[in-house]
Amino acid sequence: MTATAFRSEHDLLGSLPVPKDAYYGIQTLRAMHNFHLSGVPLSHYPNFVIALAMVKQAAADANKELGYLSDEKHAAISHACKQLMDGKHHDQFIVDMIQGGAGTSTNMNANEVIANLALESMGKDKGDYQFLHPNNDVNMAQSTNDAYPTAIRVGLLLGHNDLLLSLERLIGAFADKGEEFAHVLKMGRTQLQDAVPMTLGQEFKAFAANLNQDLNRLKSLAEDLFTPVNLGGTAIGTGINADPRYQCIAVERLAAISGHPIQAAPDLIEATSDMGSFVAFSGMLKRTAVKLSKICNDLRLLSSGPRTGINEINLPPRQPGSSIMPGKVNPVIPEAVSQVAYEVIGNDLSLTLAAEAGQLQLNVMEPLIAWKMFDSIRLLRRAMDMLREHCIVDITANEERCRSLMEHSIGLITALNPYIGYDNATRIAKNALETGCGVLELVRKENLLDEALLADILRPENMIAPRLEPLKE
Amino acid sequence: MTATAFRSEHDLLGSLPVPKDAYYGIQTLRAMHNFHLSGVPLSHYPNFVIALAMVKQAAADANKELGYLSDEKHAAISHACKQLMDGKHHDQFIVDMIQGGAGTSTNMNANEVIANLALESMGKDKGDYQFLHPNNDVNMAQSTNDAYPTAIRVGLLLGHNDLLLSLERLIGAFADKGEEFAHVLKMGRTQLQDAVPMTLGQEFKAFAANLNQDLNRLKSLAEDLFTPVNLGGTAIGTGINADPRYQCIAVERLAAISGHPIQAAPDLIEATSDMGSFVAFSGMLKRTAVKLSKICNDLRLLSSGPRTGINEINLPPRQPGSSIMPGKVNPVIPEAVSQVAYEVIGNDLSLTLAAEAGQLQLNVMEPLIAWKMFDSIRLLRRAMDMLREHCIVDITANEERCRSLMEHSIGLITALNPYIGYDNATRIAKNALETGCGVLELVRKENLLDEALLADILRPENMIAPRLEPLKE
Amino acid sequence: MTATAFRSEHDLLGSLPVPKDAYYGIQTLRAMHNFHLSGVPLSHYPNFVIALAMVKQAAADANKELGYLSDEKHAAISHACKQLMDGKHHDQFIVDMIQGGAGTSTNMNANEVIANLALESMGKDKGDYQFLHPNNDVNMAQSTNDAYPTAIRVGLLLGHNDLLLSLERLIGAFADKGEEFAHVLKMGRTQLQDAVPMTLGQEFKAFAANLNQDLNRLKSLAEDLFTPVNLGGTAIGTGINADPRYQCIAVERLAAISGHPIQAAPDLIEATSDMGSFVAFSGMLKRTAVKLSKICNDLRLLSSGPRTGINEINLPPRQPGSSIMPGKVNPVIPEAVSQVAYEVIGNDLSLTLAAEAGQLQLNVMEPLIAWKMFDSIRLLRRAMDMLREHCIVDITANEERCRSLMEHSIGLITALNPYIGYDNATRIAKNALETGCGVLELVRKENLLDEALLADILRPENMIAPRLEPLKE
Amino acid sequence: MTATAFRSEHDLLGSLPVPKDAYYGIQTLRAMHNFHLSGVPLSHYPNFVIALAMVKQAAADANKELGYLSDEKHAAISHACKQLMDGKHHDQFIVDMIQGGAGTSTNMNANEVIANLALESMGKDKGDYQFLHPNNDVNMAQSTNDAYPTAIRVGLLLGHNDLLLSLERLIGAFADKGEEFAHVLKMGRTQLQDAVPMTLGQEFKAFAANLNQDLNRLKSLAEDLFTPVNLGGTAIGTGINADPRYQCIAVERLAAISGHPIQAAPDLIEATSDMGSFVAFSGMLKRTAVKLSKICNDLRLLSSGPRTGINEINLPPRQPGSSIMPGKVNPVIPEAVSQVAYEVIGNDLSLTLAAEAGQLQLNVMEPLIAWKMFDSIRLLRRAMDMLREHCIVDITANEERCRSLMEHSIGLITALNPYIGYDNATRIAKNALETGCGVLELVRKENLLDEALLADILRPENMIAPRLEPLKE
Repeated sequence: MTATAFRSEHDLLGSLPVPKDAYYGIQTLRAMHNFHLSGVPLSHYPNFVIALAMVKQAAADANKELGYLSDEKHAAISHACKQLMDGKHHDQFIVDMIQGGAGTSTNMNANEVIANLALESMGKDKGDYQFLHPNNDVNMAQSTNDAYPTAIRVGLLLGHNDLLLSLERLIGAFADKGEEFAHVLKMGRTQLQDAVPMTLGQEFKAFAANLNQDLNRLKSLAEDLFTPVNLGGTAIGTGINADPRYQCIAVERLAAISGHPIQAAPDLIEATSDMGSFVAFSGMLKRTAVKLSKICNDLRLLSSGPRTGINEINLPPRQPGSSIMPGKVNPVIPEAVSQVAYEVIGNDLSLTLAAEAGQLQLNVMEPLIAWKMFDSIRLLRRAMDMLREHCIVDITANEERCRSLMEHSIGLITALNPYIGYDNATRIAKNALETGCGVLELVRKENLLDEALLADILRPENMIAPRLEPLKE
Repeated sequence: MTATAFRSEHDLLGSLPVPKDAYYGIQTLRAMHNFHLSGVPLSHYPNFVIALAMVKQAAADANKELGYLSDEKHAAISHACKQLMDGKHHDQFIVDMIQGGAGTSTNMNANEVIANLALESMGKDKGDYQFLHPNNDVNMAQSTNDAYPTAIRVGLLLGHNDLLLSLERLIGAFADKGEEFAHVLKMGRTQLQDAVPMTLGQEFKAFAANLNQDLNRLKSLAEDLFTPVNLGGTAIGTGINADPRYQCIAVERLAAISGHPIQAAPDLIEATSDMGSFVAFSGMLKRTAVKLSKICNDLRLLSSGPRTGINEINLPPRQPGSSIMPGKVNPVIPEAVSQVAYEVIGNDLSLTLAAEAGQLQLNVMEPLIAWKMFDSIRLLRRAMDMLREHCIVDITANEERCRSLMEHSIGLITALNPYIGYDNATRIAKNALETGCGVLELVRKENLLDEALLADILRPENMIAPRLEPLKE
Repeated sequence: MTATAFRSEHDLLGSLPVPKDAYYGIQTLRAMHNFHLSGVPLSHYPNFVIALAMVKQAAADANKELGYLSDEKHAAISHACKQLMDGKHHDQFIVDMIQGGAGTSTNMNANEVIANLALESMGKDKGDYQFLHPNNDVNMAQSTNDAYPTAIRVGLLLGHNDLLLSLERLIGAFADKGEEFAHVLKMGRTQLQDAVPMTLGQEFKAFAANLNQDLNRLKSLAEDLFTPVNLGGTAIGTGINADPRYQCIAVERLAAISGHPIQAAPDLIEATSDMGSFVAFSGMLKRTAVKLSKICNDLRLLSSGPRTGINEINLPPRQPGSSIMPGKVNPVIPEAVSQVAYEVIGNDLSLTLAAEAGQLQLNVMEPLIAWKMFDSIRLLRRAMDMLREHCIVDITANEERCRSLMEHSIGLITALNPYIGYDNATRIAKNALETGCGVLELVRKENLLDEALLADILRPENMIAPRLEPLKE
Repeated sequence: MTATAFRSEHDLLGSLPVPKDAYYGIQTLRAMHNFHLSGVPLSHYPNFVIALAMVKQAAADANKELGYLSDEKHAAISHACKQLMDGKHHDQFIVDMIQGGAGTSTNMNANEVIANLALESMGKDKGDYQFLHPNNDVNMAQSTNDAYPTAIRVGLLLGHNDLLLSLERLIGAFADKGEEFAHVLKMGRTQLQDAVPMTLGQEFKAFAANLNQDLNRLKSLAEDLFTPVNLGGTAIGTGINADPRYQCIAVERLAAISGHPIQAAPDLIEATSDMGSFVAFSGMLKRTAVKLSKICNDLRLLSSGPRTGINEINLPPRQPGSSIMPGKVNPVIPEAVSQVAYEVIGNDLSLTLAAEAGQLQLNVMEPLIAWKMFDSIRLLRRAMDMLREHCIVDITANEERCRSLMEHSIGLITALNPYIGYDNATRIAKNALETGCGVLELVRKENLLDEALLADILRPENMIAPRLEPLKE
């Protein structure tokens, strides 16, 4: 690389050579030198980059309307933000997700990229900030302390519908299987011990119902938590050095640009340092993760075998299982979902620690919080898509196995209990356990019930719901 | 103790001597032998015991109405439940909060105590279960798997108003201090570095606003999460062996007895194994805990000193600080609050692990979940009461110190920035840092602003809110 | 209670009535008023109380030897400490385990109880501190900041042998079962899918081996981490106001009294605020907890059934399972162990948060750390005893079931693979899966192997270890 | 891309087009389709890729020595492994770090890349597996279940020296500052309140001592935990279908190739499923993380200000602080370190959850465990380098400020206590607090000590260590 491949930029701490092609500038470069940590750059989360552009656009709109920003500069900044919102130049967002400075580096990365894209559109050289300045123009009327948390919130809102859609589709897939398996009678298990009959359809319907509660909750939660923003609060929420009219205009513009009902937080000082909305949302994601992992554990249990396990259902094969064990197929999809759940739970902890570490008028750990939020949401979405596409929709039931396990189960006696009496039931149960016979077989052998009644008792609709006890009929 | 001090009871596993005075019975005793673990008995949480009695009362009411339970037995059971609801005989609930069996021991502890209290009121001997049986009569139409989770939910609802009240009062205390300190001008701090001016009142008002968001959220959440119960689902939610009319009556009765809008969960199979409502509520408690800890850290920072720290506020002394260091007074109350917060966060994790470990039709880790829920709620309530009574209401401000720190702060230059220009501001700031002088002093020395304007700029109402910039006026 | 039932005590903050019978004094009472939190008092952990007495004894010995404490006072203090070490008067340690003040209240609870016990033995009234003073005499040359952390460490050492013993016995129980089941051939499972043969003895031997690694590690770790103490460092580790000879004598005495090789920490300033030894030990306990939970999960899987699960082993029944489901027996002991594990993991988190919150020369969250340490150790010990006594020693194997599952498993083909060739193996496996036949049955039907060789291959010793492949023989 | 840009590969599940240039094959491609999750590929951790190559090389060496692998194939495999060990072709390791299948996809990614590199060196086409097969040749005598965990362990060992070096250098930097600041007298603080004098040198020396304990511990721990490997155990540790001589040779070769004292685990069945070594090592990393975060919190407290905080030290500026607040410089490096610590603690939790989820003969969550281990180690290493280079070495002391705070501190009275008596001390302290005067000033005003003695008491060497009390001299 020749000497001419760099331009020189300077800031309060001195000068540095910046690659001539780079849209980012000296402060981004300093962040690169300082924070070589996770190796995960801002560009890993496109919604975050887009949200940063939206905030800068909203600020520019307000500054123009109030007469602080010229039409020319506003046009150039708008052009730049548009490109980022269109997904272009995200590779210029190179700062590590973990960074000190409470997001200053992220904010400056955005300011610099936008400034240089704007300069380019004005026919100026990159770095020629006399014509349009990252701080004075792009960051005008903002502080990292209000622009950055606002961008995080907007970024999370941008991804929210996709999360809901993935969850909704997964619920639908479970519900479909619930219908499909509605007639498959099987034993329910509590404490991993044979309990009482149910249908495989009920089991899958319960998975759907279980997740459906999260759908309703998540639907309202993100808007509730993330639409109030502290944009306009500047450094600590007092709005010092901002025009009194700025906040209202900027927030309105941001709502229009993002398509979400963004509004001003009621107490900007509180809003500047509070991380409570992230803690609450992550806690809710953790709940969904826990549910998904529990469901996937169940799928692995139900498909265990094929010969030495439960084997009531078949998961579709997604990869050869083992070179050493011919024919082995493993439940790789549910296994991956549980790992995602553990990651989300770990993320929730990291985020909680970061939230607790806020001090006075700011929480400097916000970059970690942003990372963990974006990461958990995307991981959950992808895991739910994977689970649905690569597993749930292709699950099949081993009806014969389900019925056979049920018919040989001691637990079946519970259903007969009201008809043959507790003493008979206990004797039959004990006898069955000792001899290895089935309870129905023994009941039949003793002629304790006529076949018509037995058939009636054993009809699915009678086994799997409350029923008037015979003595009361 | 003589031989006559015991009565003999038996169950499926054999016979055991039970202390003659004990209202509990053989299954409680087995649990005592089996689960000698945390040393924290059920009686540690009175609301839990009361809730168990409420569930048993509701079931008895339904069983009587449906004709399964005689008037005499119902009266005796009601008498027994009434005593427990009145706070009597809680010392008979001796089972460890950690137990296997998914709560069977807790349920049986309740069944046995109620049965023996009932027998006593019928003039029968304790243990003479032919007249009224813990299982057949007190547990009639129930399974541990529906009665136990229902009792946990009801118990949590019983304590909810107290939690809200404690939070509300604490918010009020912070808001009062916000009023009291509204005129105390001070420097705000970001990243522990001098930032820009604010008032101490704003700082305390922000604490109130911060917690107030949790009040609104917690208010609706417990009812939302805990009123749907699976009572009537029996073993796995299919309601097997229960009368079809039972669920509806029992749930209605439970609502009436508890005074909370208890209702039937829409999918009883789902409701039997799902721990999602606990995960969600604990996640919310964790958020409140995180906020309290952050606020208490702030209080400790602001009161640090008296000479080598910030010393903007004084916390009331609550105990002598040190025998070796005369006159030392420590912020012991906020310190204890943070420890409570860490405990609540730890509880949330234990509970999360337990929730994830559910398998198929039941979660056998529910006893741990119940413990952690009751514990976190009570700890938070007590910590908030302690914080308010023993700390917040007696906090005083060191006005002079606040003003002096502000006036000597370099950060004050930010407020002058729009009036003296960025170049002057930077020069003054640098000069101040090097010489140790105050920025106001230097501004005055250079006659950069006349005193009237300076006084105007420095008026609290002008320092702590957005203001039209001079160039635009 | 009459007015004479109280004595009046006073401290820097004023006077309070103390129950006349109480050995504790005013500062303990203040702590009771201030810290009404967990409801778990110091007396819940006898080793902690005993350790406090040992530290006070060691200090008194040093102070006497250096001429600061009279023989009479030393004798009285020694008499008092002896009683506490003998387990008497622990009910006087009433302060909550969660407390602000970095342990000052715990230290003062000990100082006051010892002073009043000493006064009693001197024939003086309780509270007549002119003759022997809690601070001046019992706490002489100490600060809470050195005496308290030292007592925690000594208390943990006192319980360490019991922990090791419980672990050792549990390992022994698993090893015994490993011997007992050495001949029971069964299928191994990976990813819950049938894998290749092993013996049940190998499975239990692996449990023993797994825990045995922790035994060796724990054996050395506690001594390594907890014997260096900061006694003598006084307030911040500089030893200010202590006699230069004091530290050495006090530490030597403490070693002699406790029977553990207590020694002075090399850097007392570092040792005063560092919580690293607790973090490390708790991390190790967490590892043991994780292993126990995994093993208990395995036990629950292997005993699942009896008809609709794996059912390779039987756990001993410990309580009736269900009133609604006759004959149901549940794995209640392993279930309780996993809950203990989750509690220990939660404790580790609370403790970690507390450790991270240390500031400058002290960690004020140490009371929480102490609680979580004592709690985790005792819980693990009790859980291991419970697991061994109430479960492991009475486990029996279902040999026939093990063999039958193995013989019908497709995975058996892996062992035949080298003898019948990969193509035959794959064809047989596929055929078996489709027809439901056993692979041995199919191999025999096709005469692919003569019975002698087949018997040879299927001998346990040939199935469960590496073997020269036939082509190489 | 034209149709000829793909080659077709097939496995048990069918055929897929693989990019013609790719060294990976069909099973890697399946994993890409299945596991689109974290977006973090295997290549993110070069040591992991290198370790996989080392394991494959060791296996190939053993297979050649035992006569199972031809010289030609061995040479080609060796050539391929060499390239990977040299850091080439890592971009071919594209599988997501989160994956189901217990590492099968990682293992197959390695097998396929090595096979195709080997084929290339043999002059064959990629994918022409008849000449050298990923499974039959590269994976010969291995199972994912032994090769994969072995590679993780080796990979962790490969990075261990770098971790130790970074820690050692950081300790050195703290120790150097301890020397440099040995003469700087200041106040120590406990509970954020003024305590007693110490030197800034003692404070930094304590940081060094604190971390030094981890150096010694980490030094031995990795070798202790990670050198025993289960290579040779094949599917479940029984070594089925492996040559009895294979394990010994392969392990010896792996030790030679890696340069670490790799050895066979004593119980291969135990070793196959046990994740205890990762839990223990991660727990230890968590301890280091907690320490680093505490130290960085201290650095932020000590450098707080410049005017409204403690301001005893100056951290070097690393980036401009704020566009809105002229002259603001923030402690960005310590802030980033604490975030790394929170990430490591979160990683430890995810890993713990994964370890607990092992079932029977395998832990299928191992890919998550591998990820979290590699991530935590690298993050800590980078954070320590950052902290040293960009912060510690350039810290300067504000000596005057330190001395001034000390001289005005009330806590100074503690040092005078033995000389002027407790009554005088208390009166002076109270007076000082009320009047705002310094205690030395008041002592001098009252002529309580002559200047020579006062100077002697206040000499650093007398203030910061135990001293014979005057009454005893």
